[in-house]
Amino acid sequence: MNTRDCKVIIVGGGLVGSLCALFMTKRGFKTELYEYREDPRVTQFARGRSINLALSNRARKALQKVGIEKKILACGVPMKGRFIHNLNNKNKSLEFDPRTKQCTYSVSRNFLNEQLLEEVENHPNVQLHFNHKLINVDLENGHLTFLQMKTGKTIDVSGDLLIGADGAFSTVRRAIQQVPLFNFSQTYIDHGYIEMSIEPDIGKTIEANYIHIWPRKDFMMIALPNLDNSWTVTLFMSLDKFKELDSSTKVLNFFRRFFPDSVKLLGEKQLVEDFILTKPSPLVSIKCSSFHAGGNTLIIGDAAHAMVPFYGQGMNAGFEDCLLLDSLLESYNNNFPLVLRKFTEIRRDDAHAICDLAMYNYREMRDLVTRPSYLIRKKIDDLLFKLLPNTWIPLFNSVVLSEMSYTGCINNRKWQDKVLLHVIIGTVVLMSSIVIFSFYNCQRNND
Amino acid sequence: MNTRDCKVIIVGGGLVGSLCALFMTKRGFKTELYEYREDPRVTQFARGRSINLALSNRARKALQKVGIEKKILACGVPMKGRFIHNLNNKNKSLEFDPRTKQCTYSVSRNFLNEQLLEEVENHPNVQLHFNHKLINVDLENGHLTFLQMKTGKTIDVSGDLLIGADGAFSTVRRAIQQVPLFNFSQTYIDHGYIEMSIEPDIGKTIEANYIHIWPRKDFMMIALPNLDNSWTVTLFMSLDKFKELDSSTKVLNFFRRFFPDSVKLLGEKQLVEDFILTKPSPLVSIKCSSFHAGGNTLIIGDAAHAMVPFYGQGMNAGFEDCLLLDSLLESYNNNFPLVLRKFTEIRRDDAHAICDLAMYNYREMRDLVTRPSYLIRKKIDDLLFKLLPNTWIPLFNSVVLSEMSYTGCINNRKWQDKVLLHVIIGTVVLMSSIVIFSFYNCQRNND
Repeated sequence: MNTRDCKVIIVGGGLVGSLCALFMTKRGFKTELYEYREDPRVTQFARGRSINLALSNRARKALQKVGIEKKILACGVPMKGRFIHNLNNKNKSLEFDPRTKQCTYSVSRNFLNEQLLEEVENHPNVQLHFNHKLINVDLENGHLTFLQMKTGKTIDVSGDLLIGADGAFSTVRRAIQQVPLFNFSQTYIDHGYIEMSIEPDIGKTIEANYIHIWPRKDFMMIALPNLDNSWTVTLFMSLDKFKELDSSTKVLNFFRRFFPDSVKLLGEKQLVEDFILTKPSPLVSIKCSSFHAGGNTLIIGDAAHAMVPFYGQGMNAGFEDCLLLDSLLESYNNNFPLVLRKFTEIRRDDAHAICDLAMYNYREMRDLVTRPSYLIRKKIDDLLFKLLPNTWIPLFNSVVLSEMSYTGCINNRKWQDKVLLHVIIGTVVLMSSIVIFSFYNCQRNND
Repeated sequence: MNTRDCKVIIVGGGLVGSLCALFMTKRGFKTELYEYREDPRVTQFARGRSINLALSNRARKALQKVGIEKKILACGVPMKGRFIHNLNNKNKSLEFDPRTKQCTYSVSRNFLNEQLLEEVENHPNVQLHFNHKLINVDLENGHLTFLQMKTGKTIDVSGDLLIGADGAFSTVRRAIQQVPLFNFSQTYIDHGYIEMSIEPDIGKTIEANYIHIWPRKDFMMIALPNLDNSWTVTLFMSLDKFKELDSSTKVLNFFRRFFPDSVKLLGEKQLVEDFILTKPSPLVSIKCSSFHAGGNTLIIGDAAHAMVPFYGQGMNAGFEDCLLLDSLLESYNNNFPLVLRKFTEIRRDDAHAICDLAMYNYREMRDLVTRPSYLIRKKIDDLLFKLLPNTWIPLFNSVVLSEMSYTGCINNRKWQDKVLLHVIIGTVVLMSSIVIFSFYNCQRNND
C-alpha cells in the first residue's frame, strides 16, 4: 500500500500519543489522534498527573529525530545531579556524571504536551479529536468506537494501524487482554504520593540545577525545578502513613520532624493545606506481553509498560517506543504485521526490565543513597567511569544518560558486580598470601 | 437486616456459582443466579471445558455441608492412585494413600452442574436466569446490567451482595480491576491441551480406579474414567509442538513413538481425527487481590483464582470458597462488608499458594514421577505417613486429601524437606565420625 493511503489511528493525546502522531504524520501516513480529555492547550490543568518530568537521553533522541529537541530543552531546567537533604543537615550533592556533567532536564508536562500537539498540527495529513472517549475496540476488523463527549454521539473509526497510547489504564489494552495468550500484571505498591509546591521567590534560594531528595528510609520527598524558579515537591510514603496523618498538627509535626528544612520552603500553612486537601495518588506497575494483537493493533508507552516513577523513565521509555516503531517501519518498509511482531520481540524484555529497575530505584533513592556502602560504590563507579568511559558505565548513567537497552543496563550492572566481587576476593587472597608468606619468612629468619 | 430481606445476586451458573447459590438459598437469602449460557440441563455440551474432573476432599466437605455428597459420589468413579505408563512398558501404580486407600472421584462436569442446579431449584427463595450476559457492573451502587440473549433486551438488577462466580474471564472481576490498589496477573503457560476419548468397550479393559498418566518429560497425557467405562484423555503439550503436528502422518507417528500403548485404546482413525479437528485450549493462571470491592461485591472460584489444572484443585478450591463464605456469614452474622474483608484476608494467600502448587505439579506429573529420586521420596513419605499419620502428611495428600490450608501445605512440605535434610546431614556426620573413630581406633591398636 502507498504510504499516503495508510491510515493510522492513535488513541491518547498525552505525551507519547502526540509524539507518536508526529512520527506517523512525518512518515506520510494519514494520522488521526483521539483523546478522551480536553485539548490541553485550552484547559491548562490535568488532574492527578505529575506536573513536571525528568527528560533524559532516551526522550531527547526521540525529540531529536522529529527535530524539536533544542526547542524543548530550551524550556527545561537542567539537573546535573542529586542534592541529598540529610536529617543531620549535612547535605550532599552527587553529580550524575562528574566527568561530562551530563544533565537531565526538568520539563513541564503540559508545556511538552502542548508543543508536541502544535508540531503535529503543522502537518497537513493529520486530524486531532479531543473529548473522544474510546468505548469499544473490534480488534479483528480494526474498528474503534468513540463517544463524542460533547454531543453524546458515537462514531466508528477504522484504520490500517491502531496505536493505543492511552496510558496505564488503557482501553485498547483491555481489549487485547481478552485475546488468549496475553500475559498481564498490574501491581500496586503500598506507597502513594502527593504533590506540593515551592513558590518562585523562595524557590530561587534553593541550590539550582539539581533534583533535590530528602531520603528517609521508609519514605522520601523530592523536588524538581520549574522554569519560573518554583519547585514541584512530591512526597512518597506508605498509604497507611498518609492515613495516620489526619490532622494539621500531625502533619506539621511530621514535617518538622522529618523534613525540617522544607517547612520554610513549602510554607507551614500551604503545606498543611496541600496535605490535608489532597488524596494520595496510588502507584502502579504494569507489565504485559505481547504489545500487539493481530497485524494491526499496538500499545505503547504506559499502556504497554506503566512503571513506578522512581527512575524518571516513564516518558523516556514511551518516547523510545515511538523511536523504535519509527525505525522498524523504516526497516520493514511499513509492513505492519511484521513491524508489530518485531516491536514486541525487541521491546518486551526491555519494558519488563525498566519496570523492575524503577521499582528498585525507590529503595535506592529513599534509603541506599544515605548509606556509606552506596557512597563508596558511587566513588568507585565514578572513578572507573572516568578511566574507562566506554567500558564501565554505572547503572544510573546507563539507564538515564545512555542508549543502552534496559536489559543491557541490568546485565551490565550484574557484570560489574561480578568483576568487583572477583577483585575483592583476589585482593583478599593476595593480601592473605602476603601475610602468610611474610610470617613464614620471618619465622625462617628467626630459626 | 432480616436474612429473608437480603438479596444475593450470583453471576455465573457453573459449578461454583450453582453451589454458592445453594449455600445462599439455604441460608435463607433471596437468591438470583444469572448465567450467560443455556441451562446445561437443556443443552448437554459445554464447549472448551474439561468433560470430567477429579473431585477430592475439599469439594466433598462443601457438598457434605449442603447435604449432597453421597448422591454425587455415587455417580463418580473412585481413583485410588496414579497409574504411570512408562515408555519402556514397565508400568507402575502409585497409590495416593497406601495406608487408608483414600480416593479422589472422577465426576462428569455436566452431571455435577445439573445436580447442583436441580438442588438449587428445590428451594423456594431462588430464581435461575439463563442466557443472561452481564454487560455492566456499577460497583458503587451494586447494580448489574444483563443482556437477555434471546430477546436482546437489557435488565438492571441490584442486590445486597453480588457474587462473581463467572470464571477465569470474569466480567465482575474486570470491573473490580478498575478499582485502585487491585493487584492482578494473568499468566498463560506455553502449553495447551486437547481432549480425546476412549470408548466404553475398550475402556473397560483398562486398569480401573486410577488416574492414568503418560509422563514424557516435556509433555504428558492423562486419562480419567467415566461411569460408562469410557475414559476422557487429555494431552498437554507445548503449543509449538501442537503446531508442528499438522498432518495425519505426523500425528500418528508421534503417538506411535511416544504413546504406543494408547494408539489401540484411542483408535488410530479417531485419535487422528480428534487431534486434527481440535484447536488446543490455552492454560491460564490468574492471581489477584483483593477478592472484594466495597462492602457488597465478591469474586470466588476461577474468577478469583483460575489455575492450571495439574493439581485437580480448580473446582475443589472454588467449592472451598463457598464453604468459607458460608462459615464467615455464620460467624459474622451476615455482616457483608466485614465478611468480604475477612474472606480476602483469609483466602488470598491460600489462593496464590494453590495457583503456584498447580504450576509445580505439571512438572511433577510429566517428569518427576518417572525419576528414582521422586520414587524414593514417595516411599519415605509413605512410610513416615504410615508411622506418623498426624505429623507427616506428604504434599500431595495434604493438598488433595486433607483440609490443611494451601499455604499450610507448602509450609508443611518445606518443614519436611528441612527435617529430611537435617537427617541426611546428621547421618553423614555420624557415619563419618564412626569411620574416623574406627580408623583411629584401628591405628591405635596397630600401634
